[in-house]
Amino acid sequence: MNAIGIIHTKYKKLEDMPIQPKGANKTVGKIILNQEYQDGLLDLDGFSHIYLIYIFHLSKGYSLRVRPFLDDKEHGVFATRAPSRPNPIGLSVVKLLSVQNNIIEVEGADLVDGTPILDIKPYIEQFDKVEHSKSGWLKASDEEIRNKKSNHRFK
Amino acid sequence: MNAIGIIHTKYKKLEDMPIQPKGANKTVGKIILNQEYQDGLLDLDGFSHIYLIYIFHLSKGYSLRVRPFLDDKEHGVFATRAPSRPNPIGLSVVKLLSVQNNIIEVEGADLVDGTPILDIKPYIEQFDKVEHSKSGWLKASDEEIRNKKSNHRFK
Repeated sequence: MNAIGIIHTKYKKLEDMPIQPKGANKTVGKIILNQEYQDGLLDLDGFSHIYLIYIFHLSKGYSLRVRPFLDDKEHGVFATRAPSRPNPIGLSVVKLLSVQNNIIEVEGADLVDGTPILDIKPYIEQFDKVEHSKSGWLKASDEEIRNKKSNHRFK
Repeated sequence: MNAIGIIHTKYKKLEDMPIQPKGANKTVGKIILNQEYQDGLLDLDGFSHIYLIYIFHLSKGYSLRVRPFLDDKEHGVFATRAPSRPNPIGLSVVKLLSVQNNIIEVEGADLVDGTPILDIKPYIEQFDKVEHSKSGWLKASDEEIRNKKSNHRFK
């Protein structure tokens, strides 16, 4: 697994970072795809949303039990989106703004500046849309999620 | 990156496999998590849906232009969900049926039997729900997606 590119965002440190795209809201991120892969972007611009799969490159090791940003109780790491995972892979769905040559602009990028991108996939409603989901321990309101910032907990 | 477990499904060959969870419909998949990670599943059972991130282990090399299962035109690989990607990572959202010890049962698993799992994440509506998306080149009906089977095209 090698990065196919990196993303630039205004979040230079973990402390400033929103914890999820809903928090990142209107933040624009700019992905610089390695030029050798540029041809793979053909027709991506027809999609309104894309998945970013990336490496939590600041994560150091993993814990099987974590206290997520939005709760004070411990949960299994696979029941959270915490970065301290056995395979430090991150997943975010973001809005696609533009594709120009090897540059992809997205809105709602909850990634720290310089995060290595592993893959880009189109969000396809017919495959991905989930109706009536239940979110276990997570009780936070939309407002809490929007306002919550990352911290050093999972470094 | 190492597998944290593998999934067992009834799809023994690529040819039999549905192309996405919507096609896999009610198919049950059984993930056997490596026992060392079992503790990381605590509270996962509170979620109705989970993301599986996995390796397209049958994919051989990559192409930047592909003809996806649902279209006859070529598109950039990043505008498709085809397995032949620079990093052969797959992503599916599935319904969680049960978690018992290190065994996770899911519904709608469009993965070939023996697929190595890299990560499991809860689907969290407040982070992941996309309203009003647009799916570019994809014009197939729900019925076509349900009935379409995989083939050797991307081996």
